[in-house]
Amino acid sequence: MDTAQAIGERRSAHYFDPSRSIADAQLRELFDLVKLAPSGYNLQPWEFVVIRDADGKRRLRAAARDQKHVTDASAMVVVCGTLDPGRHAERVFADWVAKGYFPAETGKKMADQVRGWSAKPLEQRRVWTTRSTALAAMTLMLAAKDLGLASCPMEGFEPDKVAREFGVPSDYEVVMLIALGYELKPDLERKARRGYEEIVHIERFGARGR
Amino acid sequence: MDTAQAIGERRSAHYFDPSRSIADAQLRELFDLVKLAPSGYNLQPWEFVVIRDADGKRRLRAAARDQKHVTDASAMVVVCGTLDPGRHAERVFADWVAKGYFPAETGKKMADQVRGWSAKPLEQRRVWTTRSTALAAMTLMLAAKDLGLASCPMEGFEPDKVAREFGVPSDYEVVMLIALGYELKPDLERKARRGYEEIVHIERFGARGR
Repeated sequence: MDTAQAIGERRSAHYFDPSRSIADAQLRELFDLVKLAPSGYNLQPWEFVVIRDADGKRRLRAAARDQKHVTDASAMVVVCGTLDPGRHAERVFADWVAKGYFPAETGKKMADQVRGWSAKPLEQRRVWTTRSTALAAMTLMLAAKDLGLASCPMEGFEPDKVAREFGVPSDYEVVMLIALGYELKPDLERKARRGYEEIVHIERFGARGR
Repeated sequence: MDTAQAIGERRSAHYFDPSRSIADAQLRELFDLVKLAPSGYNLQPWEFVVIRDADGKRRLRAAARDQKHVTDASAMVVVCGTLDPGRHAERVFADWVAKGYFPAETGKKMADQVRGWSAKPLEQRRVWTTRSTALAAMTLMLAAKDLGLASCPMEGFEPDKVAREFGVPSDYEVVMLIALGYELKPDLERKARRGYEEIVHIERFGARGR
């Protein structure tokens, strides 16, 4: 599917066909695209817990305001981001060095610097991991659209309860949930978006787009 | 361009052709796609300051570690997110009501609830706005790819300085910068990504993908 079409026609789905499932091969195709998302320093903070079993979806629904589409969806994805910026630093910067981006000494310094970020206040690390992990989440929704799957991002859930139920360690942020599946019926009319003139500022905040 | 191709071939560009520019019509085409990104409750926290003038790019570069691609890019986008969840609540929920998603009374309650979030601690609101604004940022990079533009997301900059230089009010988060333009030459080999088996967990965190 054309990219502009995928972006233009993607809508958050709320009515999924509960009789349909998503196979392992589809998951692999999907996440082999998701993993290509960009991230700060290529640190790739993301992790995805894919829930397809009925019991798991039931437990997730109980932590997500009892929303019906959680159990109707073919799969629920718990999108997580590490709160430890240094977690993958050593091999990520070794890769930069191996490919000639910078010399080994610089790579070592960079890895040390990023590992130092692990001492930053939790709230800064939450913003940090949310930023790159959400880039992967959007990639996931557009890749899903391309593969014929509807999706719905959700931020209305109890993150601590979700983490406890699905074993997400305390040094990971639960960034959002994404429902994936086959749409049974379309939602109501698409909700309005703020327009170009309002969201685009030219050269300076407040100077409107032409 | 096919969506999987756009996702698969998008790479962060660092060598832009400084002689090429991006026209108003291209900006409009781009942001008319970006605005369709999903956001929590459809609250659309995002704002984009587009910098094309040489003086603006020079000032931005000074706040972004003097990175050459800031001035070489045809346009720099300062991606901002409001820190006030209630900012657009009234009309967003009026739109939900107008389209039959829920009754007027519920709409009013929802708007009141979201306006209440404006009293949450700043750090929670930073995570909130980063989450949805980054979804729009990824949409921007894939839409750009589709329109023949290279991009580069950047988080290495001084947010306070950027805000001051471009008039971003203090109740907005500067989420990231995105360089847009025409690639002069490709970067070195693509940097490695963590694989499917590592990032996908089946049913429970730590249970690896098959």
